[in-house]
Amino acid sequence: MKRLFAALLVLALFVCAVPAMAEEAAPAAPKYVFMFIGDGMGNPQVTATQYYLGALQNPDSELPVPAALSFTGFENVGLMTTYDASSFCPDSASTATSMASGNKTLSGVLNYNVDLTESFKLITEYTKEAGKKVGVISSVSLDHATPAAYYAKSESRNEYYNIALQGVTGTTLDFLGGGTFLQPDGDGTQDNLLTLAEENGFTVVDTAEEYAALSSESGRTLAINPTIAEDSAMLYEIDRIRRTAEGEESMSLADMVKAGITVLDNDEEGFFLMTEGGKIDWSCHANDAKTSIMDTIALSDAVQVAIDFAAEHPDETLIIVTADHETGGMTIGFATTAYDTHFNYLENQTISWVQFDDVITEMRENDATFEDALAEIETYYGLTTEEGQDLTLTEAEIESLQAAFELSMLPAEERVLGDEEALLYGGYEPLSMAVCHIINNKAGLSFTSYAHTGLQIPVYAMGVGADNFAGLYDNTDIFTKTMAAMGLQADA
Amino acid sequence: MKRLFAALLVLALFVCAVPAMAEEAAPAAPKYVFMFIGDGMGNPQVTATQYYLGALQNPDSELPVPAALSFTGFENVGLMTTYDASSFCPDSASTATSMASGNKTLSGVLNYNVDLTESFKLITEYTKEAGKKVGVISSVSLDHATPAAYYAKSESRNEYYNIALQGVTGTTLDFLGGGTFLQPDGDGTQDNLLTLAEENGFTVVDTAEEYAALSSESGRTLAINPTIAEDSAMLYEIDRIRRTAEGEESMSLADMVKAGITVLDNDEEGFFLMTEGGKIDWSCHANDAKTSIMDTIALSDAVQVAIDFAAEHPDETLIIVTADHETGGMTIGFATTAYDTHFNYLENQTISWVQFDDVITEMRENDATFEDALAEIETYYGLTTEEGQDLTLTEAEIESLQAAFELSMLPAEERVLGDEEALLYGGYEPLSMAVCHIINNKAGLSFTSYAHTGLQIPVYAMGVGADNFAGLYDNTDIFTKTMAAMGLQADA
Repeated sequence: MKRLFAALLVLALFVCAVPAMAEEAAPAAPKYVFMFIGDGMGNPQVTATQYYLGALQNPDSELPVPAALSFTGFENVGLMTTYDASSFCPDSASTATSMASGNKTLSGVLNYNVDLTESFKLITEYTKEAGKKVGVISSVSLDHATPAAYYAKSESRNEYYNIALQGVTGTTLDFLGGGTFLQPDGDGTQDNLLTLAEENGFTVVDTAEEYAALSSESGRTLAINPTIAEDSAMLYEIDRIRRTAEGEESMSLADMVKAGITVLDNDEEGFFLMTEGGKIDWSCHANDAKTSIMDTIALSDAVQVAIDFAAEHPDETLIIVTADHETGGMTIGFATTAYDTHFNYLENQTISWVQFDDVITEMRENDATFEDALAEIETYYGLTTEEGQDLTLTEAEIESLQAAFELSMLPAEERVLGDEEALLYGGYEPLSMAVCHIINNKAGLSFTSYAHTGLQIPVYAMGVGADNFAGLYDNTDIFTKTMAAMGLQADA
Repeated sequence: MKRLFAALLVLALFVCAVPAMAEEAAPAAPKYVFMFIGDGMGNPQVTATQYYLGALQNPDSELPVPAALSFTGFENVGLMTTYDASSFCPDSASTATSMASGNKTLSGVLNYNVDLTESFKLITEYTKEAGKKVGVISSVSLDHATPAAYYAKSESRNEYYNIALQGVTGTTLDFLGGGTFLQPDGDGTQDNLLTLAEENGFTVVDTAEEYAALSSESGRTLAINPTIAEDSAMLYEIDRIRRTAEGEESMSLADMVKAGITVLDNDEEGFFLMTEGGKIDWSCHANDAKTSIMDTIALSDAVQVAIDFAAEHPDETLIIVTADHETGGMTIGFATTAYDTHFNYLENQTISWVQFDDVITEMRENDATFEDALAEIETYYGLTTEEGQDLTLTEAEIESLQAAFELSMLPAEERVLGDEEALLYGGYEPLSMAVCHIINNKAGLSFTSYAHTGLQIPVYAMGVGADNFAGLYDNTDIFTKTMAAMGLQADA
């Protein structure tokens, strides 16, 4: 009690003596705001990544040791509900709408109300009006639901061309980067989006040389990753790392954030930069735990770029890291492994499900045998028929691989899939799913769904205004709290 | 900025003018501390309960509405890691040890270090030394790992008699209530624990009349629930409610907390009361979602008793609600229901897995047919073979029930269970598990394990010192933060 009184007395004297200094020491609003969204990155995804890295970094430890990610030590942590107006298991369009505009809407809708009669004003629009530069980055296509929610309004998330059109012809964005567009020419007869972007003042960059030339003088920039993978997205981090080891150069999500900062940090008002790690979600849809862990690490590395920037701009930066929803019902623990986990086993997996799909396609075209398939599985996942290894396949596992292999070797139109197959493979390439489920379960991980789930989502925040983000709240409060942190008022 | 300065100036004037009042307004430590542990109550269990109640309370709503539990509105929310010295998927002994003593240890160990060479001093011992009364309540047996960790030290959680002996012959406890003892006479030749308790100054109560007679003058009390179920535990809430509707009177967990407060609230120093909802865990081990939801509601009701007490003792009470770990890998969402949830379907389930086991035993003894079993399943779960209903069983579901029924009708020693059956039934009564999995999945819920998982766990806190509990930390910090809130120093 005495100590408290003494502290208050010191505060009182301080306030009386040096009001100007107190005023300077507590800036009201951050000049720079970084918003990171790990799509599908629920608590299981973050914790599994911490435990995977901890297992690798401490191979000789008898006791389990979790590793820190760049953002897991942030001083303010909150939890938020994610349900939307359609479901307790929401989608990325409605949840990003909630975070970008402060409103609930239906799954699939971007920044329109439930009746589709009114559109919402976005935090990026308020930010732009307040004089800040605005950037949006995603590891998936630039017109995908999460990035779209930060610059576009659409009754359906599937209106890819119209969404992108709002980005490249609108006035909100100063930087749009990551993957590329799904429908660059719309229905094939519409104006090319890259051409329209250039006509509207964007510089389009998509080579290493062009990235190297970016500066604070670059102006509006449309930054397409030099390496584009399936569905107009960036590579999965697990594939980028393998291909980097094979000598291919490519840009990571962290590199894209660096590019964004280079372009946006050019005046007194600062910027708002939203960055999405979009493929954590995609890999969890496909129940590919290792790939989701690597993309979570890629997001952590991207956040580190913001942390380093904040270190150079103390008292001027706010960093928020969260997710839109959990994907796949990932759990740390599985029925047959019970209390054991063997996360180190996942080190043997070096390929994403989608690139293993390509391996399977090649096998199908070459009339591969099941033995050929087992050899590929050993190469990319470490699963082996050799006795006595950590990753020795059991008889039941070999049987499940064989059943999936036989389906995967049929042309898609000849496959007959019943309820059981729907549950086992979720519409994905059967052999890819069978392999993922086996290595997940051996490592002590599991999934229950190929869709999103209703788990509450952690929010990690550091810097100016970060204390707004502690507690339990709704995803619409991300808008409210970020606006409050920036000292902005929403229109009545 | 001006507003901040004005606020600081007002504070300064206030501090200068009325120091004594400022001193009174901020008490340093809570007189009453309530610690609630929902065993196995991770974020999925809490959120599923909110969504289940929300669905029931808003049957006509087109949009999903989550309900509040007593503690989900607490002003301070944290997240904690739960790994122990054995595993990322810890057990209740090691995690309760962490919260009660501030130390990590091996799964299965109670308040001893990893080498089993030293025991730890408990928060209840520090609290007792500081003059507070100490109470421990559990809905399972009084010698189970979680309650045990708050009054006993044992190299193994399975030393039930020796654990209980420490409770009834030690000096820490003023109130021990809930279920009863698993081994009241130890190996059958040892001193009876109830007799020993009475010899050591405990009044033993186990009838409604004796509970009604409890008062602040009762002194040390061993409070055994008048209705004891399997494994010396209290009834599952779902069974208590059904049996109450049938005219049987019984005491809830909330009633036990009221009894504890009545006995403990009798002097100036206040009390520390730990209450465990132990059967959330048990039902999740058995993948029985509805039963775990009802026991989560029972815990919420028990917390409400503490909230009501806090309303009568403002500025003197701290309430902490958390869990030791998640159990079962419960997820809100399942592969076949994808983005849909139908939590209202769970209303049809009115029995716990364990009491349905009894129904199955009776069927086995009476040579019941599969049609008899389907009739019982319809009675207790609402699952039906009638076409066109919400809970109409599919052909595949009927097949899975039939396979489980045939196993369940065999005497245990005649059952041959392979790997697939181990995964399907987890060592439980096959028909009970088959029914639980079907109704869970129809409602849009699922489990991945019959064991504990590695999910981080929310901590909800209100009252004096509650702001200690925001942020992301380890379960050992529950000890540190609670000690700090009480103004207590751990021994060097």
